[in-house]
Amino acid sequence: MRAIVKHSPGPGLEMVDVPIPTPGPGEVRIQVKATSICGTDLHIRSWDPWAAEHVITPLIVGHEMCGIVEAHGEGETLPALGSLVSVESHVVCGVCAWCRTAKGHLCPETQILGVHRNGVYAEYVCVPAENAWVDPPDMPLSIASLQESFGNAVHTASVPDVSGRKVLVTGCGPVGVMAIAAVKALGARSVYATDVSDFRLDMAARIGADVIVNVSRDSPREMIAKETDGEGVDVLLEMSGAPTALADGLSLLKYGGEAALLGLFSSPVAFDFDDNLIFKGATLHGIAGRRLWDTWYQMRAMLRSGAVDLSPVVTHRFALDDYEAAFDLMASGECGKVVMFPDPDDADGPLTTP
Amino acid sequence: MRAIVKHSPGPGLEMVDVPIPTPGPGEVRIQVKATSICGTDLHIRSWDPWAAEHVITPLIVGHEMCGIVEAHGEGETLPALGSLVSVESHVVCGVCAWCRTAKGHLCPETQILGVHRNGVYAEYVCVPAENAWVDPPDMPLSIASLQESFGNAVHTASVPDVSGRKVLVTGCGPVGVMAIAAVKALGARSVYATDVSDFRLDMAARIGADVIVNVSRDSPREMIAKETDGEGVDVLLEMSGAPTALADGLSLLKYGGEAALLGLFSSPVAFDFDDNLIFKGATLHGIAGRRLWDTWYQMRAMLRSGAVDLSPVVTHRFALDDYEAAFDLMASGECGKVVMFPDPDDADGPLTTP
Amino acid sequence: MRAIVKHSPGPGLEMVDVPIPTPGPGEVRIQVKATSICGTDLHIRSWDPWAAEHVITPLIVGHEMCGIVEAHGEGETLPALGSLVSVESHVVCGVCAWCRTAKGHLCPETQILGVHRNGVYAEYVCVPAENAWVDPPDMPLSIASLQESFGNAVHTASVPDVSGRKVLVTGCGPVGVMAIAAVKALGARSVYATDVSDFRLDMAARIGADVIVNVSRDSPREMIAKETDGEGVDVLLEMSGAPTALADGLSLLKYGGEAALLGLFSSPVAFDFDDNLIFKGATLHGIAGRRLWDTWYQMRAMLRSGAVDLSPVVTHRFALDDYEAAFDLMASGECGKVVMFPDPDDADGPLTTP
Amino acid sequence: MRAIVKHSPGPGLEMVDVPIPTPGPGEVRIQVKATSICGTDLHIRSWDPWAAEHVITPLIVGHEMCGIVEAHGEGETLPALGSLVSVESHVVCGVCAWCRTAKGHLCPETQILGVHRNGVYAEYVCVPAENAWVDPPDMPLSIASLQESFGNAVHTASVPDVSGRKVLVTGCGPVGVMAIAAVKALGARSVYATDVSDFRLDMAARIGADVIVNVSRDSPREMIAKETDGEGVDVLLEMSGAPTALADGLSLLKYGGEAALLGLFSSPVAFDFDDNLIFKGATLHGIAGRRLWDTWYQMRAMLRSGAVDLSPVVTHRFALDDYEAAFDLMASGECGKVVMFPDPDDADGPLTTP
Repeated sequence: MRAIVKHSPGPGLEMVDVPIPTPGPGEVRIQVKATSICGTDLHIRSWDPWAAEHVITPLIVGHEMCGIVEAHGEGETLPALGSLVSVESHVVCGVCAWCRTAKGHLCPETQILGVHRNGVYAEYVCVPAENAWVDPPDMPLSIASLQESFGNAVHTASVPDVSGRKVLVTGCGPVGVMAIAAVKALGARSVYATDVSDFRLDMAARIGADVIVNVSRDSPREMIAKETDGEGVDVLLEMSGAPTALADGLSLLKYGGEAALLGLFSSPVAFDFDDNLIFKGATLHGIAGRRLWDTWYQMRAMLRSGAVDLSPVVTHRFALDDYEAAFDLMASGECGKVVMFPDPDDADGPLTTP
Repeated sequence: MRAIVKHSPGPGLEMVDVPIPTPGPGEVRIQVKATSICGTDLHIRSWDPWAAEHVITPLIVGHEMCGIVEAHGEGETLPALGSLVSVESHVVCGVCAWCRTAKGHLCPETQILGVHRNGVYAEYVCVPAENAWVDPPDMPLSIASLQESFGNAVHTASVPDVSGRKVLVTGCGPVGVMAIAAVKALGARSVYATDVSDFRLDMAARIGADVIVNVSRDSPREMIAKETDGEGVDVLLEMSGAPTALADGLSLLKYGGEAALLGLFSSPVAFDFDDNLIFKGATLHGIAGRRLWDTWYQMRAMLRSGAVDLSPVVTHRFALDDYEAAFDLMASGECGKVVMFPDPDDADGPLTTP
Repeated sequence: MRAIVKHSPGPGLEMVDVPIPTPGPGEVRIQVKATSICGTDLHIRSWDPWAAEHVITPLIVGHEMCGIVEAHGEGETLPALGSLVSVESHVVCGVCAWCRTAKGHLCPETQILGVHRNGVYAEYVCVPAENAWVDPPDMPLSIASLQESFGNAVHTASVPDVSGRKVLVTGCGPVGVMAIAAVKALGARSVYATDVSDFRLDMAARIGADVIVNVSRDSPREMIAKETDGEGVDVLLEMSGAPTALADGLSLLKYGGEAALLGLFSSPVAFDFDDNLIFKGATLHGIAGRRLWDTWYQMRAMLRSGAVDLSPVVTHRFALDDYEAAFDLMASGECGKVVMFPDPDDADGPLTTP
Repeated sequence: MRAIVKHSPGPGLEMVDVPIPTPGPGEVRIQVKATSICGTDLHIRSWDPWAAEHVITPLIVGHEMCGIVEAHGEGETLPALGSLVSVESHVVCGVCAWCRTAKGHLCPETQILGVHRNGVYAEYVCVPAENAWVDPPDMPLSIASLQESFGNAVHTASVPDVSGRKVLVTGCGPVGVMAIAAVKALGARSVYATDVSDFRLDMAARIGADVIVNVSRDSPREMIAKETDGEGVDVLLEMSGAPTALADGLSLLKYGGEAALLGLFSSPVAFDFDDNLIFKGATLHGIAGRRLWDTWYQMRAMLRSGAVDLSPVVTHRFALDDYEAAFDLMASGECGKVVMFPDPDDADGPLTTP
């Protein structure tokens, strides 16, 4: 089968031919129907310090996908053959205190597809049966593929209490934009969104942001203070990893407010705990992954009820063979979610051709 | 009456004679029976930048106290004359969204006794009737006096969930030590305490800490990792305001753990959000004041049930006339809570004489 | 001024002329612009056993209203003269443990307008300043008037966690219908509604119920089991006070589900705790009044964001002079909320004339 | 091996010789060291209607135990051979929505040892590896055996918020008594206990109840009202299944209070929802089993910290061969927990001989 592989340490990826894998005990084999690109995959392609530290080569990369269950390992019968499934890429131990108390997203033994074990940029992949999440058979493949990413957004959006609250989302990449959709579905009173890209802010507005601010042109502190009658916001979702966004966001946060941080900062930030946290009686939540499996049930409810429509987030579709062009587009930032199809005939929308 | 006054900007305090105040509408006048010293009072005496920015002179200082209600302003009938009361020093507006939803400790209009309006280092003080908290008539005066400080400890201890958890308390000043007592009463499994002072660590051990570490001699990371079989702690209470204590504490915090921060850092801290917060799925709570009035009910329960005994915290008693000696001792750090009595005959233990 | 009065124990109400009241200390006088009828008012008119036990005559009745602040008692300055306000009818003590910890809706000293002290079916009323909730000046008067009732709905809807859940509402009187709107705004996945009246079920459907069942014709157990693929519902809101509705609702509740009960049953119900509660690991919440003031902030957020539109609930408007006709219609059940206007020119929609 | 068996429908049990079982895939075989008697086992012996409906014969009975892991089924390596383990008797499916979100105690596919599959009154038993909970090797066998029962107590005690609260426990059988220990460890301010047996009330007092009331002699409503200055209690734990205890308990419950119900009532109870639940703004929690695995971690913390000492609960020890005498004693009610030892030499205290 075709697979996109990192052969050895260093930049770049190649598409090569490898054997179709055989599912072990407790596993299922899935035929990949759609697979999407995450920021992590860009880091692995460019081989940044994080990738150099964590990725073991050779490796099939990629971790966001959906597909059809087509073989069971010994002892497994579920999900049924033919089921459309999305994949949770975090393979956890199941026996630690975190796994046993619904905090599997924090399991210290986590193995991630496409990082620590072979991933999903391929025609087939084997995963533990419990990591295959059954979707409705008529779910669009591009939406089914990006659910892991949506899970990060829903997790971030649901840790603070956003119901009836004014929410600021700093950073409108695909996960930020999906977080906007999630907080609206969770009953937020109004959503303010910031970014440096008009393309992304336009996505934010289309998915439901009430106010957008391009921080390369306008002051978010002034504009959002004005929009909130000087009161500021109840909740901050920090999705950008930019220290200025964090500083702006916390300066706008009300006394007693909550912030959830998903964006990574890469290096230490000079932080005023007294004014930003302690005097304010604020709470900062670090967000890692998705809750296993609470977040997946939340996603199912949001998507099936129609409360969230993710179609504005899927901006481009490529054949998997054109992965280099897809990655280049993703790196440019002028896109939402980019989905690739091993079989181009499976595409649920027009393909971009390089 | 005698009162300790800051006359004008600059270091120092004086005891002077001033008229006994008259309670306005909604107020009560209280005869001060005992009054204790808080770190804030030291800042006001030494006139540090915080004091220079916030304190308006001339002002009677001090905010921790207990006393006897002895006059009502117009329209007030409660608490009854003769009641022993402790005073909540935060006078809040009562009409903002915070005050109306049990978050009065975050009221932006807060006026603090001894900071923004006349305080309690005097023979009498007038406060809003609702700020006078009725104590059992047989409560020791020194304990009744320090309840505001204990309230900070209880608030810090009760924001994270400590029940059945391993808890690290960094900083064993009086509030840190009382926080140890509070987390024990709240069902913590074990409590680890750090400080640089053997005097304070000894108080910590007497009030219930299971393990104490003097960080000027030993590595808390090594010792507490060893004590917890390498697992670390579930909860951190940061009571010191020392960046190294915060760093040590968060490095020992388990995935998914919670930290509550009360100690002030005075200046920005270089902080690694990725490792300390985001990858860890941790939560940081900033703690301001005491919850009005939930924390006071918690304190009442802890003290009346006997779950908490604060007597190890009260290390010194002075006549109010000897306030300079009392302040000097407090500044030395070789003490727990220092209580002063306007009438030395009221002292509930041996007096220290300068 | 004109006022609707219960002169002495026994059925009936009369409109009489009484002096305009003078606001005492801490009070404001409000010119009533609109006032709506609650089920309680019907009980008082008909003088049922509950009314005979609780109501002290002579009394101006009525408790749901909005109006314009037009005089302050001594010492009050807020809300500003000319403000449009809705009234919270529960006058609480402010000093008990419930009032001091944001549970004022449970204050044992509660005095209710139109039950224990003069009410709002009049041209003017005096209430404590804190009971006057400021509305946006452009809020329709009929909506502003019914907020207390909406508050019951929002309180019921927000005690269980409805986000992403399947919710059954039994009883589609005005409060039940408003609860449907509230759970949708709070992110419920789907809402099932039952009643015996097609008129009310039609309101339920117009305000957002996904499935309606007339239990006088169809089996809710069968229909809702079918609609939920046999799984049942996560949350039950019992708004009818009918024992069969409670039994049906709990039989449809999933293991671990939550029920909130607002409807009163008037007499004991034979209840199977083992099957309905214990084996199921279920939770039953009794709902009394509205939370002071959390619920009012929630209402403000729902109404200002547009998440809830209550206009389908207001089915009839009357001149206050036609109160007998308005009460007769309310008693028939063939209506939603019925609003009366002291000055018919204030009506924000067509008036019904008897 | 020896095993206590229900051969066919009807009263009675017999000890017979059966083959030692072989662990299947995912299972471990445990040598039983101690096993305790639960009320359910009495129902099975006497073959009451519940037993007739649920138990499938022939069956080895019993579900509370501890023992030593001595063989692994295929694919299993944990817990290590030689580990002392307690057993969670609920074998759950692991794939339903409840199991996947830390609510496995509500799994509809639950199989219970000694009810639906072979139990633990035997020399050996095979259970799924995940149902074997590793204990410290020096834990007394009688304590290790009764942890399932203790789990019911801890689960009941930790669903309402008992910290700093006044708690009433109605019913002082072994689970009720252990619940008293648990609420004390969780920081309850004071605990009131009721029963009809002086033997049990004495156990309650020894484990920490502050006030005990024998309801066959004294009025709990009067006595507990008096002890609480007429205020009543914040929390009720109903452990008796007696309708009068429920009625007494709820009449003593404060406005806004919480009740957790574990005792089964066997038949419907006439219940006044208006006064007991709705006007009171109370909450009733049904308690089923133990939370998988949150409750087990809570138990570990309580036992290892020394916050709970269960030794007063273990009143009698028997050789397993004397099971008839042990059951007769348990049926008399004049005991706490009764523990049986397949090998009498394993007894951790004096044996009772018939």
